[in-house]
Amino acid sequence: MNNSPIFILVQPQLAENIGMAARAMLNCGIYEMRLVSPRESHLSEKALAASSGADIILQNARIFSSTEQAIADCDYIYATTARRRGMIKPVCTARFAATEIFSHPHRKCGILFGPERTGLHNDDVCLANSIIEIPLNPEHCSLNLSQAVLLTGYEWYQQAVSAPQQHFSLGKTAFAEKEKTLLFLKTLEDKLNVSGIFKQPEKRKRMLINLRNIFTRTDITEQELNTLYGVINHLNIPSHSSKD
Amino acid sequence: MNNSPIFILVQPQLAENIGMAARAMLNCGIYEMRLVSPRESHLSEKALAASSGADIILQNARIFSSTEQAIADCDYIYATTARRRGMIKPVCTARFAATEIFSHPHRKCGILFGPERTGLHNDDVCLANSIIEIPLNPEHCSLNLSQAVLLTGYEWYQQAVSAPQQHFSLGKTAFAEKEKTLLFLKTLEDKLNVSGIFKQPEKRKRMLINLRNIFTRTDITEQELNTLYGVINHLNIPSHSSKD
Repeated sequence: MNNSPIFILVQPQLAENIGMAARAMLNCGIYEMRLVSPRESHLSEKALAASSGADIILQNARIFSSTEQAIADCDYIYATTARRRGMIKPVCTARFAATEIFSHPHRKCGILFGPERTGLHNDDVCLANSIIEIPLNPEHCSLNLSQAVLLTGYEWYQQAVSAPQQHFSLGKTAFAEKEKTLLFLKTLEDKLNVSGIFKQPEKRKRMLINLRNIFTRTDITEQELNTLYGVINHLNIPSHSSKD
Repeated sequence: MNNSPIFILVQPQLAENIGMAARAMLNCGIYEMRLVSPRESHLSEKALAASSGADIILQNARIFSSTEQAIADCDYIYATTARRRGMIKPVCTARFAATEIFSHPHRKCGILFGPERTGLHNDDVCLANSIIEIPLNPEHCSLNLSQAVLLTGYEWYQQAVSAPQQHFSLGKTAFAEKEKTLLFLKTLEDKLNVSGIFKQPEKRKRMLINLRNIFTRTDITEQELNTLYGVINHLNIPSHSSKD
């Protein structure tokens, strides 16, 4: 995808975490991984297994011996940190960074992620234009490496796809036209009338309003209406006359 | 936190995943976990180790033998799914669900997460009012359980805290007033004038504009200005006369 940031893992310790980070990147449509002096191999069996099918990211990952070299061809760098550093630098959320990346389509962005145990060293943080701090429960904000990668990538992907926030899954059916829903309600009311359930006029009115609210509020479909007809036709509703 | 949803893990298989889900919940300030027929114990050593300090969530987790029982006291249920089900139901993003939860402060919400291998069964999905589908790369959208928990919880937390999207980290210093920045630029320009670098008037103008842009664009602080004065005072800039 265009304008996708480069994810740069600085001195990651465990192959498994590199693999899980690759998986999270692929989840978010981010394909370019760089590794600065990883302790374990990103092509080890552990890494490949943990990537759950994101081999392509690991196989294309490039290795660098310093953060300076890894960011050399980038135009703008974010550093992800969990704790305050006293650095003189802008600090933003992952969501803000994602919108910023999108509003600068010609800027090649890299995002730095630090080692599992310590996070990024200040020597690396000060190479960045800006810091990303993900807003999380301040009493328990430590994320593992792949989760930091996931949340940062997720925010980018939300910008990239601009998916509709809500839709209605209809399967193979369609919404019932109001006429059909009202006809069903009429059939139901007729059945209930005959059953003698509406002996008190006040209760009748309240019950009918409730029934209408239930079935009009619920975006009922043709398939569901058929099921409802099946139910009320099958039920042997006693007729008023037979009860008296 | 008020109005926090209840996270309900349906038939989770691995204790480690329960622990990691607890960790992700605590990251997002969500404290109430329910478990439907977990295969392994949520209080096992594996679960506690994987929770990385989120013991409190595991210790307070309640166990149920059916999804129906686990949701009995809730008012509204979301089911998280990765793949389309052909269900007749509204489908929304985790972000939309988070805003919905917040716009219904008196509604007790539960969110269902399925077993690792299969996701939720349709028997459970149809108990939900609405489906959550997290927008991710359609070619690789499978998340592990704790990552689905993390992204869903994360979106809720972003609503809950409404953190500022950007700020500037100043450490112990303050922004330099413009007067001070301009005085520094004047000092630098005087030094450069004396050095004879500005032999061509056109080049002089362009260089001065570039220097002013660099130092005015950058939100310079008092601490940084002091460093810059230290640098230009220390550099032994050759004077024009000595060069000629």
